[in-house]
Amino acid sequence: MRGEPRIGDVFGEMLTDAYAVQTGTGTRPLAGGRLPRPVIEIIERDDGLINGAPTAHYFAGPPDWEPYDQRAVARVQGATLDVGVGAGRVALFLQKQGIPVTGLDTSAGALAVCRRRGVRNLVHATVDAHVADGRRYDTFLLLGNNVGLLEGPERAPAFLAALAAMARPGAQVIAQGTNPYGTRDPVQTGYHEENRRQGRLGGQLRLRLRYRQLGTDWFDYLVCSAEELAAMVDGTPWQLVDVDDRDAPYYLATLRLAA
Amino acid sequence: MRGEPRIGDVFGEMLTDAYAVQTGTGTRPLAGGRLPRPVIEIIERDDGLINGAPTAHYFAGPPDWEPYDQRAVARVQGATLDVGVGAGRVALFLQKQGIPVTGLDTSAGALAVCRRRGVRNLVHATVDAHVADGRRYDTFLLLGNNVGLLEGPERAPAFLAALAAMARPGAQVIAQGTNPYGTRDPVQTGYHEENRRQGRLGGQLRLRLRYRQLGTDWFDYLVCSAEELAAMVDGTPWQLVDVDDRDAPYYLATLRLAA
Repeated sequence: MRGEPRIGDVFGEMLTDAYAVQTGTGTRPLAGGRLPRPVIEIIERDDGLINGAPTAHYFAGPPDWEPYDQRAVARVQGATLDVGVGAGRVALFLQKQGIPVTGLDTSAGALAVCRRRGVRNLVHATVDAHVADGRRYDTFLLLGNNVGLLEGPERAPAFLAALAAMARPGAQVIAQGTNPYGTRDPVQTGYHEENRRQGRLGGQLRLRLRYRQLGTDWFDYLVCSAEELAAMVDGTPWQLVDVDDRDAPYYLATLRLAA
Repeated sequence: MRGEPRIGDVFGEMLTDAYAVQTGTGTRPLAGGRLPRPVIEIIERDDGLINGAPTAHYFAGPPDWEPYDQRAVARVQGATLDVGVGAGRVALFLQKQGIPVTGLDTSAGALAVCRRRGVRNLVHATVDAHVADGRRYDTFLLLGNNVGLLEGPERAPAFLAALAAMARPGAQVIAQGTNPYGTRDPVQTGYHEENRRQGRLGGQLRLRLRYRQLGTDWFDYLVCSAEELAAMVDGTPWQLVDVDDRDAPYYLATLRLAA
């Protein structure tokens, strides 16, 4: 198939280049062999939708964060696992505050960028695999829209069980999501309807990431309402105790380990 | 095939949205149904390479242009055809200078953006089709890397013949290109080598554009050295009379109609 990408560490390669552009050091992608090319994240959806987005926000400091991210870190307590640490913006901030934070990611390249930026505790694993490491946490962070990592109603119980297996008594999950259903864009509402016809949640996206010659496999990433999240949490070791939707359609959900 | 785009006016839809974002008017693509989403041009190459690029430069005024673009417009004389007028940045500038300029594009959406921005003379056609309209020009502009529209050695003679058929005595072509061969990036040098194995010029790119759910068909777009351009001009009604490569690897080539 013409133009098909090779499978690889898309996110890591992208962050490595974006870090080089940010810092002006290392090998940067060039346009015309001379001008630095802005590093753009490219996301394909299985209905043919493709979107590009700048990557500078992965490196933003707290003053440039969205208000919900600032409120999220204010809720952190105790030993913290930053799930999907990315380029480490949140982990770096917490570390400077003296909070014992560990960054977890499945991207080796992302972790290498975190290490170069000074994040001390890093784990290259899925949450499931990390359970066996015997570490225990008081706070699990799913920021940067990472409610998406729950994937959907099939995967969510196992994902939340893995967090529970690593949870100290009274532990919390602080998860940032986006309610996708406020739009009238037919590209979006049509996708939601087609998903429901297939027995999926409306915002259960089937995506792949691409960067230069690399692509990921297709994976599910969940964009859901707080109500849909509540339904998935029901029956797990967690309770949904708070939804902060002051910046709707974005929200912060707080889950607490059931006593 | 999962994720394949629909064929459509990619460039026009993209510029329409980018214009809405630029001006803060009209329907804009939103992230999360709320935040304006930056409009990114996505270019796929047939080796799986994909790149995104911001689109603000399509609307830039002369002070923000690259120096070679500023020198290009200083060379304009007489009735001018802006081939691949895009969002009209160059046509608007020339029109304000009192130069009789016509913008030509194959994208209906691009022409609609030009019209809303105030470009008066617009033609929806290829150069070949425009010949039959009986219009005659003193200057043909191929800016924004539009040496690329020559596609390659097979297409170039017909393209240049079409311009010659619309040329007044002494007419000129001012064409901006990029020498692609100054790079050591193996992604690029490998592509050049594979092209040559197939009897193509090294920088004869096979591309398609994508925007949201739309894609173009695959097409050739030529990135070549001034020497390669000279070889393609040889034997046509045009003579390559000047190459300004002060901003190498970018260059401005001036062709003059042979007497």
